[in-house]
Amino acid sequence: MKALTVRYDGYSGTSEGPTVERLSDWCELSQIAVPKPSGSQVLVKVGLANVNPSDLHYIKGEYGQPRKKGAPAGFEGMGEIVASGEDEAARKLIGQRVAVSVSRGGSGVWAEYALTDARAVVPLHPKLRDEDAAALIVNPMTAWAMLDLVKKAGAKAFVMTAGASQLGKLMARLSKELDLAAVATVRREAHRGVLEGLGVGTVLNTEREDFEDMLVMAMRQVQPTVLLDAVADQRSADIFAAMPAGARWVIYGKLSPQSPALPSLGQMVFMKKRIEGFWLSEWMASATPDARREAFEAVQERFVSGAWKTDVAETLSLAEAGEKLGEALSGLNRGKVLIRP
Amino acid sequence: MKALTVRYDGYSGTSEGPTVERLSDWCELSQIAVPKPSGSQVLVKVGLANVNPSDLHYIKGEYGQPRKKGAPAGFEGMGEIVASGEDEAARKLIGQRVAVSVSRGGSGVWAEYALTDARAVVPLHPKLRDEDAAALIVNPMTAWAMLDLVKKAGAKAFVMTAGASQLGKLMARLSKELDLAAVATVRREAHRGVLEGLGVGTVLNTEREDFEDMLVMAMRQVQPTVLLDAVADQRSADIFAAMPAGARWVIYGKLSPQSPALPSLGQMVFMKKRIEGFWLSEWMASATPDARREAFEAVQERFVSGAWKTDVAETLSLAEAGEKLGEALSGLNRGKVLIRP
Repeated sequence: MKALTVRYDGYSGTSEGPTVERLSDWCELSQIAVPKPSGSQVLVKVGLANVNPSDLHYIKGEYGQPRKKGAPAGFEGMGEIVASGEDEAARKLIGQRVAVSVSRGGSGVWAEYALTDARAVVPLHPKLRDEDAAALIVNPMTAWAMLDLVKKAGAKAFVMTAGASQLGKLMARLSKELDLAAVATVRREAHRGVLEGLGVGTVLNTEREDFEDMLVMAMRQVQPTVLLDAVADQRSADIFAAMPAGARWVIYGKLSPQSPALPSLGQMVFMKKRIEGFWLSEWMASATPDARREAFEAVQERFVSGAWKTDVAETLSLAEAGEKLGEALSGLNRGKVLIRP
Repeated sequence: MKALTVRYDGYSGTSEGPTVERLSDWCELSQIAVPKPSGSQVLVKVGLANVNPSDLHYIKGEYGQPRKKGAPAGFEGMGEIVASGEDEAARKLIGQRVAVSVSRGGSGVWAEYALTDARAVVPLHPKLRDEDAAALIVNPMTAWAMLDLVKKAGAKAFVMTAGASQLGKLMARLSKELDLAAVATVRREAHRGVLEGLGVGTVLNTEREDFEDMLVMAMRQVQPTVLLDAVADQRSADIFAAMPAGARWVIYGKLSPQSPALPSLGQMVFMKKRIEGFWLSEWMASATPDARREAFEAVQERFVSGAWKTDVAETLSLAEAGEKLGEALSGLNRGKVLIRP
């Protein structure tokens, strides 16, 4: 089969962040054997694969697990299950159309066939579009799990950075449903209208000269106590410092390679603030099967009803991705870039 | 009565940290009326008052509560209860020798008489020395509560910064009792022997050129998962970054005015690290009466038995403190500076 395979092994020790100029610097188009499922694994004929920041972190050796040189990349996609290991539950899935998340020991979705554990696939509603299915797990489940965290924290309002991302838009829609006030940061004035249209009450442009004044005013008015942060740069640290007592800074991505200075660590003591991380893999591993099922049903319903929608900027073939992916991703937040093997 | 009263109101907005060149820049020796207890308050004839970093934070307007201009400073001390409000429980305390923590609405201990709530005094064991009594609450209770946190976190080892402080020595002794491995940082080679003598397995000198190599080696060998931090400077951030997955950075003081850069916020996501604060006032307010009583008995026992001891560097009168306190505090960790009204 054809696959985009990883060029290097292990961790790089760098932390440049999830951007690539040319994918071909990190992955190469290879002809390799179709992987063989065993035990509870399933083999998926990939229909459409997603490209997430986590994939770029991974191929650059900056992710929470080491690279495997020569193995296909790509953590998320959709397709049809065509074979399985001997496990009964896995066998029953053959023929099903599923969303796929690649588990450890699996084989990536930037390939004609992918391998994962039966517990890491989600059988799909027949009316769900392939595009929504290919991006069903990472962003929607993160949106769902993180706003659940906001609610459980007893917060009435939250801040999200990178508000114009696909994940940001999902959280904007969900916050309205959950009656949570949202403050979103963007880097372009053009994104303001989109987010306000989705129900975000306060949009802050981090590139504007009056950002700091607007920030202080917004924090006073809206009093958000959770910061859901994809960026983790100096702006994020400044937002956290401006938030009221009891604020939690929940970092789920590291889009920026900056090492921000924390100007007010005394707030951790006297204002009971704290800084923590969110990683979907951790959430999935620790959630009960019921909680996972409920969440998957909830997100699929929203895509099928049209309440949620995956915007697609571009769809590339495996052969095109090597040269064209970098550029396709470089336009800010026009939508997801997908790969069709 | 004579008292050292605060010169300014409210917060300063600065964060210079808990040092003063001359106390008289922040407090003045005044002649004011003896405060009157009401309700559940008690009036304490102060025997000996302590000087903690929190006092210096407070008089400089950098603490978790606003200054009250003209009111006596000083949060901790010991003395005898000589009057009370109408409350029965408060009345019963008259004549008792107690350790004092000044509650909100009270009046500070850097004075001949102090006012606090009956719940904020601890009746003393007759054999407890005045010096140990004057420093019974802030340091010993913090040591007790924080090592309780370490145990409850399931950690087998922890790091403490400012290891040669009075609090550091208390935690060193307690860690041995609790069978926790301790890593302590110091800034002078002379402090190494003292801490090793108290049972600290690993002492790291942050001023030595080989600090970073020693740090990496110590973290690998000892695998500490909690950092109890009084300093919150760049060294602390570096220590946290070198700690293993799951590490918690618990900030309880801000001795350094630095705004450290956090080089590895991605660790919050992929290594499940987190940063939080510890404030004794919060702990006292949220602990059950039984937990508080148990803790107070436990710390008194240790002082009476001689297992713990408060080292005193100098004792000043109210009149001397204005000019001499700054210098008395400037010697690194020779022991507590006390005020005898």
